Order: sequence, then structure tokens, then C-alpha cells
Amino acid sequence: MRHDHLISAKQLSRADIDTVLDRAADIARSPPDVNQYADTILGLLFFEPSTRTKMSFDSAMKRLGGTTVDMGTVESSSVKKGESLADTVRVIEGYADALVLRHPSEGAAKMASEFVDVPIINAGDGAGQHPTQTLLDLYTIRENVGFDDLSIGIMGDLKYGRTVHSLSHALTNVDARQHFISPESLRLPRSVRYDLHEIGANVREHTGLDDVLSTLDVLYVTRIQRERFPDENEYRQVAGQYRITAELLADANDDLIVMHPLPRVDEIAPEVDETEHAQYFQQAHNGIPVRMALLDLMLGGETQ
Amino acid sequence: MRHDHLISAKQLSRADIDTVLDRAADIARSPPDVNQYADTILGLLFFEPSTRTKMSFDSAMKRLGGTTVDMGTVESSSVKKGESLADTVRVIEGYADALVLRHPSEGAAKMASEFVDVPIINAGDGAGQHPTQTLLDLYTIRENVGFDDLSIGIMGDLKYGRTVHSLSHALTNVDARQHFISPESLRLPRSVRYDLHEIGANVREHTGLDDVLSTLDVLYVTRIQRERFPDENEYRQVAGQYRITAELLADANDDLIVMHPLPRVDEIAPEVDETEHAQYFQQAHNGIPVRMALLDLMLGGETQ
Amino acid sequence: MRHDHLISAKQLSRADIDTVLDRAADIARSPPDVNQYADTILGLLFFEPSTRTKMSFDSAMKRLGGTTVDMGTVESSSVKKGESLADTVRVIEGYADALVLRHPSEGAAKMASEFVDVPIINAGDGAGQHPTQTLLDLYTIRENVGFDDLSIGIMGDLKYGRTVHSLSHALTNVDARQHFISPESLRLPRSVRYDLHEIGANVREHTGLDDVLSTLDVLYVTRIQRERFPDENEYRQVAGQYRITAELLADANDDLIVMHPLPRVDEIAPEVDETEHAQYFQQAHNGIPVRMALLDLMLGGETQ
Repeated sequence: MRHDHLISAKQLSRADIDTVLDRAADIARSPPDVNQYADTILGLLFFEPSTRTKMSFDSAMKRLGGTTVDMGTVESSSVKKGESLADTVRVIEGYADALVLRHPSEGAAKMASEFVDVPIINAGDGAGQHPTQTLLDLYTIRENVGFDDLSIGIMGDLKYGRTVHSLSHALTNVDARQHFISPESLRLPRSVRYDLHEIGANVREHTGLDDVLSTLDVLYVTRIQRERFPDENEYRQVAGQYRITAELLADANDDLIVMHPLPRVDEIAPEVDETEHAQYFQQAHNGIPVRMALLDLMLGGETQ
Repeated sequence: MRHDHLISAKQLSRADIDTVLDRAADIARSPPDVNQYADTILGLLFFEPSTRTKMSFDSAMKRLGGTTVDMGTVESSSVKKGESLADTVRVIEGYADALVLRHPSEGAAKMASEFVDVPIINAGDGAGQHPTQTLLDLYTIRENVGFDDLSIGIMGDLKYGRTVHSLSHALTNVDARQHFISPESLRLPRSVRYDLHEIGANVREHTGLDDVLSTLDVLYVTRIQRERFPDENEYRQVAGQYRITAELLADANDDLIVMHPLPRVDEIAPEVDETEHAQYFQQAHNGIPVRMALLDLMLGGETQ
Repeated sequence: MRHDHLISAKQLSRADIDTVLDRAADIARSPPDVNQYADTILGLLFFEPSTRTKMSFDSAMKRLGGTTVDMGTVESSSVKKGESLADTVRVIEGYADALVLRHPSEGAAKMASEFVDVPIINAGDGAGQHPTQTLLDLYTIRENVGFDDLSIGIMGDLKYGRTVHSLSHALTNVDARQHFISPESLRLPRSVRYDLHEIGANVREHTGLDDVLSTLDVLYVTRIQRERFPDENEYRQVAGQYRITAELLADANDDLIVMHPLPRVDEIAPEVDETEHAQYFQQAHNGIPVRMALLDLMLGGETQ
């Protein structure tokens, strides 16, 4: 792997993905020597609220023996004074050895990367990309069921979820069969479908789980956001239909894993947490070895 | 001491208290070897504003050579997206080796501890417990006047102050004579009085300091909150009566120490800061060795 | 250099300035041994929003091998409960080995320094001082053009900018010729002019750049704040006149450096970023070696 910045999951080849995931698996087995990063500072620039992504990068850098500096919230920063993103990142690159950036505007990370010399990792840019989420999703799939002959169902809000679009693109790289399950109003956008078609993705769309559940190795559930619906009734109806329960999972493959990028609201019933299917908390925890691996490859780079 | 979590001061036996306070005294004398904790990350989850408790844990972990990751404010986190506390702690336990939790709901820390495998320390749960405050209070008392034949006055808002309820419970463990001094409207709640009676506490109640001041080793003052009173006049009258001044302390024992959990507003006149009685800033500083001791016992556990 | 606190640039003698700048230059060339500060904790107390100053101190302490504890925003702290600044700093000094303080009230740092035993560094007190900004400005000037026979233009809002007042005072120490360029309504305040006159500063005032641009070694631009103007029209007119463009710089000395304390809004056109004149991002980055030097001198103090 040799990238100066990680902006989009689309820039990752199959070889890149294997390199990061192999390194993550090594790290999960035996934590690396931390002295290498004793002098390394990672800058955290989150222009939108975040708990898990920010804490996960923070923890990953510290698990590597390095440290972080945090811009804090937009409200507590001089961004309020009207500074451009280009200026902000050009200043802050002087305080850190690499930057993690989340920003509400699509394309923000790409733009920022054109102004700075230190590596930039995109931690979400609006409706755009969130490549480290994709990498930890792939890691969770590979560690549990492998990539061979993989059948995955991706369910819920497929229209707005950036997680889904990135993941689907990457899954094409590992030749997965992808089933998209959503209400008509939350179907994958035409542009994404076209994009997947162009790269030869193996994709089918469904409006319910019944036809496909028993054939799946992975069921990836996403949050259906109340604010996407014009009225409460329609929301309730849709949300009720796309809720995973223990009863529903009785029809599934024993080895099926259920994933979710979290936070969840009602999409997965709490009783599912107790089943062997539930991998969503472990999935979140996998952010640590995956982000450690990524930082190690981008900053230390012994395994390029 | 062997506890997986520290949820309530009530779970601490006299032996537990001595173990923590002895270790804290050791640490205050000679800081421990910090290499043991070079790989340790403490997660800070504060769902309510806090300065001193959060900074104190942050500093204590770092004084031990470890580091921290901070969830930030609720406004900057995905808690806003409707995630349950149980889900939040199950995710964040993957980023840290132990969690410190403050939450506005009584029982939150207990509940959280049932969902995670890492140790949880309760840093305040609404009107409930705040056990590390109790430990640093006990440490301050023991270091200054000892527990033998101890007479303590606890004054101010005894109705709402969680600090007071925890402390009073623990003081019973060290056989202290406890004098509660408050206006009628801010008396210790009946449930707490009953609880103290059940465990054989040595307790008397007063509406003024005059009868008891000269008999005290410790005067523990708490903040009287304006928002507890229906009208400003009543507040002023009460607050004025329960204000400690240098003049008032002229009648006290020379060795009397004045304590306060801070922040104070007007309960202690600034001139008292200059007297030998004032121990409230030192009391706050004692949070460092006490929390270092606690983390050391819970995480390293060489002295169990 | 031997100061317990750094409150004002005015307390720095020429020898002090040289000591800090020499140490910063050493650090920029070869980072110091970081083991000396492995046990050092710097407390960050920012009562006002800040990005660059706070992150810069945070990074500088960590580049020295130490760590920091952060009070967080005022909204997330117990300052909201009505605690006085004197009480807050007396508590927090127990959690750290030195404190960096930014506060909206002029004189806050001075006042705070009278209550604590640990060193305090003023990181801005309202319209008052911001001495580490002055030091990094001086460092940037010295590294680029030196102090010998220095001619500097200071332009923009000279009335409200605390940066300017501190810098101007310090520049008198190095015998610079200072040209102040501003609209009539944003002239240097009479009190500052008087103060500069008293210490023998070499100062001239202008309402435009034309007369002086070609004679300058340094052009220091400051932000003209919209909110200072009664109406939008007047703001636009003034802001337009005091905007630096590549075209305008065609008349300047080849070696002229353009500085700005940042954030900028429209005072410097983006095309200037690409010229050799632009030093404002490097100026911000210079905050790291300068603050490392200062912390090293105040905390370690091997080079006094």
C-alpha cells in the first residue's frame, strides 16, 4: 500500500485491502512495539459530532504509543471567525504528523489534502466517503465468514447511508454477492447503482428479507432515520418492517453474522444482542486494530 | 480490595477504605513507577458538565503514566442520535481499559456495569453516588485529624447533596460522631436518616453551628443552591446564616479543618482561605493521589 | 530568563527575547530529549474559543514528551456554577505542573498568577496581552529577515488588535522602525501611542501602503472585523482598501515577508499564498518551537 492520503474507499485495490486487513489481524493478535510512535502526534479535526470514530482514532493512535491533539468542536474553535477549511488545515498541519478529518461537506477531505503535506485520513465527508468504516466492516466480515463465496444482505436506508455506498463498492473488489433490502423510498440511488454496475458488481434488490435471509452469510443493518420521512406514520410502518428480531433470525443460517455501523435506534431488538449472530459491538471494537494498521502503514510504513 | 467496578461508597468496607487511603498516602509520598501503565487507556464518559472530577481522573491516569480518551460533551457525541447508554458503553469499552462515568440518572453506573467487561468507576449518577469524592474526603480527614474519636459537622444543603449522603455512610464505617447542621427545609431526607440509623450511625441534627462548633474536628460545608428556593428572599436569609467567616471560626478548635466539595459560591468567605483551617483546595488536590491509588488497585492490583 | 509566570510581553527584556528565540531555533533544528518531561502535565484553561493557540500549546507540550489536561469549554465546566476564577485556578493547579490561561477579561492572567504556585502562561486576556503570539511573531521576523535595521509595516485594525499592541512594544526592544497603516477610524489608540512614545519607539503612522511598501522588510497584516463598523458599506470600503494582493506586492522588496496572526478572512488574497512573500502559515507553525522553548525554559530551566 502506498497512498499519501486516504480519501475514499474507492482508491483501495484488493491488494490494499488485504494489506490493511492482514496488518490489522497481526495487531489484534500481538500489539506492535509502541516505541516507534512515541514522537507521533495525530490531529483530530471533527467539524461534525462524532463519538465512536473520533474516540476510535484517538485510542488507536495511543495504542500505537503516539498521542493526539484535538481541534475540539466547531463552536470552540476559530472556524467561527470565518476561516476557510484550507487555511485551518494548513495551520493545523504544523501541529501534527497526520490529520483525521470529518466535515459536513462532500469532497472536503479531498480538497484539504490538496493544501497540506501531512497525510489526511477522511473520517466522513457529508454524504461522501468514510473509508475507515469500510475497512473495519471488511475486517469484521473477513474475520468471521471470510470473503470466499460471500453472500451479504444490506438492509435499511440505502438512499442516504454513506456507509453503504462505500462498503458496496469495496465488496465488489472481493466478488461478493450483494442483496440490497429496503423500502422503495429508500432504495440505493440511481447514481450508486450505475456506479456499481460499471465496476461489475453482483447486485440484486429486494423489498423484504424473506426471499434471501436463509442464503446470507452477513446481514448488514443500517439506521432508518425518522427525519427522512414526511410523516410519522410512514416512518413507523417502514421502521417496523425493517426491524431484526430473534424470531426473524430463527430462519437464518446458523453462522450468519448481523452487523450495524451504530448507533442503532430500533432496527435491531435488544434480544438479538444475546445471540451468536450479533457482531455489531465487536465490529465497532474492530475499529481499533484496523485504524492502528492503517496509521502504521501510512506513518511507519514498514510493510509497503 | 477486590471490586470489578466502583459504583457506590456503600460497597466499600472499612478494610477497603484503609487499602485505598494507605495506597494514596504512599503515592503522595513517592509517585509509583509509571511504566506499568504505559499501555493503559482510561475512557472518560461525562454526560454532565464537570471540571474538577474529569480533570482529576485525567490527571491521575496520566500521573500513573497512562493516557485517556474522552467522549466529549453530549452535544458533540452520537448520544444525540438516540443511542442508549447500554450501547454507548458497550462500544466505548472497546476503546479503553476502564471507564469513568458521570451521568444525570441515578443508577446509570450500576446499569452500565452490567453490560461491559472493563471496570467502571462511578463519577456521579444524578442524586445517587459519587464514591471517589467520598474517598478523597475521607483521605483529607484522615491525613489531617485522623479517624480516632472523630467529630464532624456537615453543614448546608443536606437534602440534595449526594456528596453528603455518601460521605455520611462511609463515616459510619469509621465510627465518627456526625453533626448535621442545616435549615429545616434542607434537612437530611428521611430515607437517608433511616438508612444511617439502620447501620448504627452516630448522628445528631442541628439548625445552627453555635452548639457544636467548638467540639468539631472537621467542618464540612456544602453549597446552598439558589435554585432550590421558591423565592430569592428565603434563599438570602438561609445562605446568610450558613456562611463561614473568619470571625465565626474564632470560636472553633485550633485544629479544626474546614472542607468543601467545591465549587463554592458564598458559603465560605474568602478571608477563611488565608487561615490554617482552610483545607478545601488541598481536599480537591487530594483527588489525584486518591484516584491514582484507586486506578492502581483496580487496574494493576499489586496490593490486594 | 527567570520568570515564574509569563503574563505580558512587556515583562520580557531584550535578553529574555533572545534567550527564548535562541532556544526555539535550537529546538527547530534538533528536537530536545523528551524524557525530561515524561512526568510533566500542562493544564489548558481556555475560557474563550481558540483553535490554534490551544492546539499549539497542546502539541508543544507533547512534542517535549509531556502531556496535557484540558478544562474543556466553559459550557462543559463547573464555571457555570458561579465559581470564581481564583477558585478555579487554585483547584486546577493541583492537577498540573503549569497552566496556560485564556480569558475574556483583561488582567485575568495576572490575577490568577497571584493565587497559584505553578507557573501561569497568559494565552490572551481580552484586549490585554498575548505574549506567546508576540514571541512567535518575533521568531518569524528574526528567522527570515533578522532584527538588524528592521523596517516593519503593521496594517489593518490597529485599534482593537491586542496582537499589535504587544508586538509593537516588543519591537521597540529590537530598535525596529515601525510604520502603522490603518484607516483613521482604526488608528492605534492614544494610550498605546503614548506608551510607545514613552519607551522611545520609532513609529510613524500612515493611511495607505503606497508611501512605505517599498521600504519594508516585513508587512504584518491584521484582520479588520466587520462587527467593528456601524454599517456594511463603510466596512466594505475599508476592507477593500486594506487587502493585500499579488499585484500590490509587485512593488515590494523581493525579500519582504507578509505575516498575519490568523485567522484571515479577506485581508490577504489567496494568490499571495503561492508567493515567496507569504509567511503566515509558517508563522503559525513557529508557535511549536517557540512554545516548546518557553515551556522548556520555564519548567526545565537548564538554560537560564
